[in-house]
Amino acid sequence: MKNKVQDLISQMTLEEKAGLCSGLDFWHTKGIERLGIPALMLTDGPHGMRKQKESADHLGLHNSVPATCFPSAAGMASSWDRDLIGRVGQALGAECQAENVAVLLGPGTNIKRSPLNGRNFEYFSEDPYLASEMGANHIKGVQSQGVGTSLKHFAANNQEHRRMSTDAVIDERTLREIYLASFEGAVKNSQPWSVMCSYNRVNGEYASESEYLLTRILRDEWGFEGFVVSDWGAVNERVKALQAGLELEMPSNEGLGDAKIVAAVKSGDLSEETLNLAVERMLTFILKTVENRKENAVFNADDHHQLAREVARESMVLLRNEEGILPLSKEGTIAIIGEFAKKPRYQGGGSSHVNPTKLDDAFTEIKAIAGESVELLYAQGYELDSNNINADLLQEARETAAKADTAVLFLGLPDSYESEGYDRVHLSLPESHIALIEAVAEVQSNIVVVLSNGSPVEMPWLHHTKGILEAYLGGQAFGGAIADLLLGEVSPSGKLAETFPKKLSDNPSFLNFPGEGDKVEYKEGVFVGYRYYDKKEIEPLFPFGFGLSYTEFQYSDLRISKSSIKDTENVQVSVTIQNIGNCPGKEIVQLYVSDVESRMIRPLQELKGFQKVELQPGEQKEVTFELNKRSFAYYNVNIGDWHVESGSFMIDIGSSSRDIRLVASIDVESTTLIETIVHRNTTVGDLLENPLTKEKAKKYINIFGFEEGTGDNPEMFIAMMKYLPLRALIGFGQGKYTEENLAADLLELNALVAGK
Amino acid sequence: MKNKVQDLISQMTLEEKAGLCSGLDFWHTKGIERLGIPALMLTDGPHGMRKQKESADHLGLHNSVPATCFPSAAGMASSWDRDLIGRVGQALGAECQAENVAVLLGPGTNIKRSPLNGRNFEYFSEDPYLASEMGANHIKGVQSQGVGTSLKHFAANNQEHRRMSTDAVIDERTLREIYLASFEGAVKNSQPWSVMCSYNRVNGEYASESEYLLTRILRDEWGFEGFVVSDWGAVNERVKALQAGLELEMPSNEGLGDAKIVAAVKSGDLSEETLNLAVERMLTFILKTVENRKENAVFNADDHHQLAREVARESMVLLRNEEGILPLSKEGTIAIIGEFAKKPRYQGGGSSHVNPTKLDDAFTEIKAIAGESVELLYAQGYELDSNNINADLLQEARETAAKADTAVLFLGLPDSYESEGYDRVHLSLPESHIALIEAVAEVQSNIVVVLSNGSPVEMPWLHHTKGILEAYLGGQAFGGAIADLLLGEVSPSGKLAETFPKKLSDNPSFLNFPGEGDKVEYKEGVFVGYRYYDKKEIEPLFPFGFGLSYTEFQYSDLRISKSSIKDTENVQVSVTIQNIGNCPGKEIVQLYVSDVESRMIRPLQELKGFQKVELQPGEQKEVTFELNKRSFAYYNVNIGDWHVESGSFMIDIGSSSRDIRLVASIDVESTTLIETIVHRNTTVGDLLENPLTKEKAKKYINIFGFEEGTGDNPEMFIAMMKYLPLRALIGFGQGKYTEENLAADLLELNALVAGK
Repeated sequence: MKNKVQDLISQMTLEEKAGLCSGLDFWHTKGIERLGIPALMLTDGPHGMRKQKESADHLGLHNSVPATCFPSAAGMASSWDRDLIGRVGQALGAECQAENVAVLLGPGTNIKRSPLNGRNFEYFSEDPYLASEMGANHIKGVQSQGVGTSLKHFAANNQEHRRMSTDAVIDERTLREIYLASFEGAVKNSQPWSVMCSYNRVNGEYASESEYLLTRILRDEWGFEGFVVSDWGAVNERVKALQAGLELEMPSNEGLGDAKIVAAVKSGDLSEETLNLAVERMLTFILKTVENRKENAVFNADDHHQLAREVARESMVLLRNEEGILPLSKEGTIAIIGEFAKKPRYQGGGSSHVNPTKLDDAFTEIKAIAGESVELLYAQGYELDSNNINADLLQEARETAAKADTAVLFLGLPDSYESEGYDRVHLSLPESHIALIEAVAEVQSNIVVVLSNGSPVEMPWLHHTKGILEAYLGGQAFGGAIADLLLGEVSPSGKLAETFPKKLSDNPSFLNFPGEGDKVEYKEGVFVGYRYYDKKEIEPLFPFGFGLSYTEFQYSDLRISKSSIKDTENVQVSVTIQNIGNCPGKEIVQLYVSDVESRMIRPLQELKGFQKVELQPGEQKEVTFELNKRSFAYYNVNIGDWHVESGSFMIDIGSSSRDIRLVASIDVESTTLIETIVHRNTTVGDLLENPLTKEKAKKYINIFGFEEGTGDNPEMFIAMMKYLPLRALIGFGQGKYTEENLAADLLELNALVAGK
Repeated sequence: MKNKVQDLISQMTLEEKAGLCSGLDFWHTKGIERLGIPALMLTDGPHGMRKQKESADHLGLHNSVPATCFPSAAGMASSWDRDLIGRVGQALGAECQAENVAVLLGPGTNIKRSPLNGRNFEYFSEDPYLASEMGANHIKGVQSQGVGTSLKHFAANNQEHRRMSTDAVIDERTLREIYLASFEGAVKNSQPWSVMCSYNRVNGEYASESEYLLTRILRDEWGFEGFVVSDWGAVNERVKALQAGLELEMPSNEGLGDAKIVAAVKSGDLSEETLNLAVERMLTFILKTVENRKENAVFNADDHHQLAREVARESMVLLRNEEGILPLSKEGTIAIIGEFAKKPRYQGGGSSHVNPTKLDDAFTEIKAIAGESVELLYAQGYELDSNNINADLLQEARETAAKADTAVLFLGLPDSYESEGYDRVHLSLPESHIALIEAVAEVQSNIVVVLSNGSPVEMPWLHHTKGILEAYLGGQAFGGAIADLLLGEVSPSGKLAETFPKKLSDNPSFLNFPGEGDKVEYKEGVFVGYRYYDKKEIEPLFPFGFGLSYTEFQYSDLRISKSSIKDTENVQVSVTIQNIGNCPGKEIVQLYVSDVESRMIRPLQELKGFQKVELQPGEQKEVTFELNKRSFAYYNVNIGDWHVESGSFMIDIGSSSRDIRLVASIDVESTTLIETIVHRNTTVGDLLENPLTKEKAKKYINIFGFEEGTGDNPEMFIAMMKYLPLRALIGFGQGKYTEENLAADLLELNALVAGK
C-alpha cells in the first residue's frame, strides 16, 4: 500500500494535496476522480451511527437514517465489560458498512472532571485506566469491521462551557496521569484509524495547533499511525495546525484553508514534505477504507436491538436495595409512575443523537415480563416539557401509588438538562420530579426509583426510597433492560465508573469549574474523582466502583506471583470469587494499587485492573490480573518519564473503591537511576538520608555546638539541622565553616552520590 | 537627620559600609567607634522580649533575661482588640528600653494556611485583614516607645517543613489578596522600622533575593521606609540580596559576606550607590534609635503581669457552653484535672520562647477566686513528658472527678507538639489527654475542658463535654485569666481568628501541604480558611469569628451611608449592638463583603471590618465601619492593580462568619476602564453581552441557518452560538463568511469597543 500511496502523491498537484486536508462538505473527505480517489464519509457516533440524510440541513441532529441506539458511554462504562463493548463496536461497524460510512466519530475517552460537564454522558469514566480500556475495546470492535474510529476529543476537553476558546491549564504530571492517560491506553492498545483533536486550548495552545500533543506525544511517544481530524470547526490557523500534525480539517473550509496551505508551500513557510506526509496519511486511510469496504452489507436490526438490551442490562447500576425490595415480586400491584416509563429518556443531546431503529418503553416491557399475575398501574407524574410542579399529576400519582404494593418511579434529567454544547449548573433533578417522590412517599413506603440521566444527580430524597436503579441513558432497549432487572430476569451487574457526590461542592473541580473567562485551571491536579474523595476523606453518596447485585460474592485466596520485583518485571495477581447467593450474577472485581510511602503527593489508591466474572450460585472462579511498571508508576516530570519509587506497594482487591476485601503487598525496585546533584542549598537532612552521603554529613550535626538530641529543645534542633542548607552552615558556623569548606565538600559529596 | 546620615556615609570606607550590612555577632549590628556609630541589639519577640544573657550560647532559647510573656499571637488575635494589642506593644517597647534593645523581632503576620504549621502560634490569623490590623497595632505600640519592630516573615513562609529551601509557588492574585495583604496593611498603617525577609523561596526566588518583594512591592508600592533584615541565616548570595533590597544580614557572617560586597563594588558588579542606599537606611535606623533611647528606663513587672492577665482573658475563646455550665458555681466541689492546671503550657517553642517574670498557675488562681465555699480537688491526669496513657493517673482522675459536681480538665498540646522548626503531622491531642476525657466521662457528665494549644486540634471527644474554653497559649498570666473566666469574674469575649476544622483533611491546603521536595504549591489559591469552608460548604468544627459569651447581644439598625458609590468613594456602615443579657460583656462585630455576581472566582464573603464593643447589661452602642475601594476589590493580574467589578455587593454584619445577623446591599461602580480587544477568537456571546457590540453581533446568530431559539435542540444551538469564536464563522458559514469579512468586522468591532 505504501508504494501505491507514494505513486498517487507523485501524481497529485499541490492544490489536490491541500484539498485532501479538508472536507468536501460537512461529512465527506474530498475525492480526486482522475486518480480514482473516492470521497469518504465520516459520521457521528459513538454509541450509534448518526448518518445524516441527504435532505437534511448540515447540523440537523434528528434527521438521520435509522440506526441502533446503544447505551451512551456513561452507561456502557458501568458494565466494566471489555468483551461486551467490543461486541457493541462490531455492531456499530456493521451498521457503518451497511451505510457506507468510513469512520464512526468516537469513542470519547475524556475524563469526567466535573459531573456538570454537559457531555459527560458521552464519556466513560473519571478514571483513566477504565476509560482507556473501554475506549480500546470499542475501537477494536468497530475496526474489526473494516470501519475506522476517531478517538476524541484530544485533549483536556472536559467541559462544554466556552469549549471553543477556553484554555485548560494543567500541570504536566496531571496531564500525563489523568487526562492523557485515558487516550494513551486506547491508542496503544487499539490503534484507532483517527484521532479527533478538541476545540479547546491546552496550556495556551489550541489542541489543533499543538505539536506537543498531536505529534510528539500522540505519534512519537504512543506510536499512533492514523490521521488526526479536527473537531468540526476546531481549526484556528490552518497552516499551523498542519505543521503541528493535524491532517484533516472538518468540515469543508470552502477552499479557504486549502488556499492557505498552497500559499504557505509556495512562500516556503510550509515545507512540501510536511504536506506530503499529511497526504500520505490521508491516502493510507482512504485506501484502507476501500480495501475493507463490504459492498451490499446489511445488518439485522433486531439482533442489534437485542444486543442493545443486553448492554443496557449490564450498564445499569443498582445503587440501593433496602429490605430486598428488588427484584419486584411477580404478584400484587405495581404502580409505574413518571412519564419516562412510557417516553424514555435514553440518549443525550447533540452530535451523538441517534435516530433509533426501534424504541422500547419500560411500561410495556414490564407488563410483558410481569405477566397476568401482576396488576400494573400507571400515572404520568410530571410533564416532560416543563420543570414546573403539576398538582393534578401529583395527586393522580398519590392516588395511584396508594393502591399499589410498590411504586416504581421513573425519574431523571430531561433532554434540555444534558447536551453537547453547554454544561449543567447544578446536580438536582427537576423540581417536578422531586415533588413527585415526596408526594408518593406520603402514601407509599415501598418506593423504587429508576433514574435516567447521563451524569450524577444529588439525592436529598434518597431516604424516601428503598430501591434505586441508575439506568443512565440506556439506549433504545432501555425499557426491556429495565424490565429484565426490576423483575429479576437478570441480576444487576453494573458498577459506577464515576463517584456520585453528596453535593456538587464536594467535587474536586468545584472551585475552578468552569474557570474564569477563557481560562480553566485544573488546580485539583491528579485528585480527580475517587482519588480526591479518598484522600480528602469525603464520604460520597455512592463511591466509584460501587453497585449492588441480587446475589452475593465472596473473595478469597489472593495470590501474587512474586513478593518482590524489579520495575521491569510483570507480576500476576489472582483471586478467587465465589457466588454465595441464590441466583446467577456477575461481579466486577477491582484491583487498586497504592504506594505505601512516597516522596510524591499521590492518590491513596489507583485502579490498575478489573475483571467481570459471571457465576452461577455456588460457583467459584479464579480471576487474574497482570500488573506492570505502569501499575506502580507516577509521571516524573523531571526525567520526563514514568517512574516507580522503590518500596512497598499495597494491592487491594475490592468490590468497589470503598469495599476492599483482600489486601497484599509487594516490593518493587526501581531500575531507573535518578541523578542527584548536591548543591549549596542541599539540606543536611537530605544528605543524612542518602546512604552514600550519610557518613560524611554526620559532621554537620554539631555545627551549632550541640550534640545530637541534646539542648533545651531537642526536637527543634534536630529539625533545624535537618532542614539546613549547606550554605547556611557558613553563617551558623560563626567562622568555623567557610565558602572554601563548602566548595570542597560539594566536590566530595557529588563524587559520593555519583558512586565514585 | 538626612544630612547627618549623608555626612557619615561620606566619611566611611568601603569596608565600613559593607560592614554595616551584616551583624557583629548573633544579636548586634556593627558599630563604628571612630564615627560614633553604636552597635545595636535586636532580640526575638514577638509576644515577649527574649534578650539573651551574655553568658548563653548563641541559640540557647531559655537562657534569657526575665521579661513579661504575653499570650502568643494566635491568642492575641482572638481578642480582635486593636487597642489592647497596642497596649501590649507599648509594654513590650518599655521592656526593650529597659534592656537597651533597639529592635524587637516581630510581629509575624504570616497567614495560617494550614493548622499544621508549627509556628502558627506566633501568627495571627487565616484572614489577611485581621492579621494586618493586629500587626499594625502591635507595631504602633512598640514603636511608640522609641523601639523598632521587624515585621516578619516576609513572605509566604507558611510552614516550617524545609523552610530554608522550599519554594512557595503561588499565583499572583493569591499572593496579593492573601499572603502579601497581611503585610501590606501593617506596613501601610504602621511603618515598621524593619521588615524581616523569610527563609523560603517564593515562585523560584529566595525571599532574601527577591527585588520584586523587597523593593518593588515593599518599598515602591507600599512605601516602606525602614530596613530589611534577613531571617537569621536566610541570606543565600549576599550581593544579590543587597541588590534586591536586603540591607542587613543576620547573624554575623564573620566578614565573609562583607568581603563579597567589597569585592563586588570593586569589580563593578555592584554599584556603590546601591551600597550607599543600604547604609543610609541602616544609619537612619541607628540614629533614630539613639535619638529615642531612654537611659535608665525601667518597667513595672507587676503592672505588665496584670496587663498580661487582661490580654489573656480577652484572648480566650469560649467554644462550647451547654446548659450554661460556665461560669462555674462558686459553691460545691470542683475537680481540677490535668497537670497543665499546675504547670501551664503558656507559650510555644523556638525563638519566641520567653523567660517569664512570673508564672501563674490555674489551680492556685482558681482557688484564690473561688474562695472558701468551693472545695477544689486535683488530679494530675497525665504525665507532661509522655504521650503514653498512665492507668494509675486515669484511675485517680476518675475517682477525683466522681467526687465533684464538675470536672475541669486542663488539656492541650505538650511543648514538643508545637515549635518553630517543624510542623505537626496531625491535629490530635496526645493519647493520654484523650484517654483522660474518656475516663472522666465514665463518672462525670459535667465536664469543662480548658485547652492550651497554639493552633486548632480535632475534637472527636467533644460530645463528652459541656464546656470548652480555648485558652491558646495564654502567656505567664494564663492561670489568672482562666480563673477569671471560669468563675465568671469576666465574660469570655474572644473569637476565633481561624477556622477549627472537624478533621485535618478538610483543610484547604491538605492535598498540597507541606509540598513535594522543595516545592509547595498553593493550589487552593485564595480559598484559605473560611474562604474555603464557606465556598465548599464544609461544616467546620467551629467557624472563623466564632466565640460565645456569658451574655447575649442583639443586632439592629444596619445603615449604609450611601446606596451606591463609585469605587473612589468611601462609605460608612453603622449598626447598633445591645447587650440583652444579664452580665457585662464584649461583642466582636464583624463585617463581611460579598460580590453578588462576578466573572472572577471569588470567596463567598471576606472580612472587611470588625469592632469590639463593651456593653453593660441593657446598654446599646452604635458601631461604625468605613469601607473603601479595597473592601470590594479583587486583585486583577491583567491590569496589575486592585479592581472592583461594577455591580451589587452584600454587606453582612455578623457575630461570626457563620452567624450573619443583618444584611444590606450597595452598588459600586468601577472607575477603571478595562481595555477590550476584539480578536478572531472573541466569542459571539461575549459580543452579544457587550452593549457596545450587541447590535452588530446579532447578525452572527443566524449563521447556522436557524432562527434564534428554533431547531430541534434550541438550547444547544444557543449555547453553540454563544461560545463560537468569530473565526469559526468561516468554517460553519460554509462560504457565507470569509477571512475578509472577519478582518472588516474586527476593525468595526474594535472601533465600537473603543467607543468610536
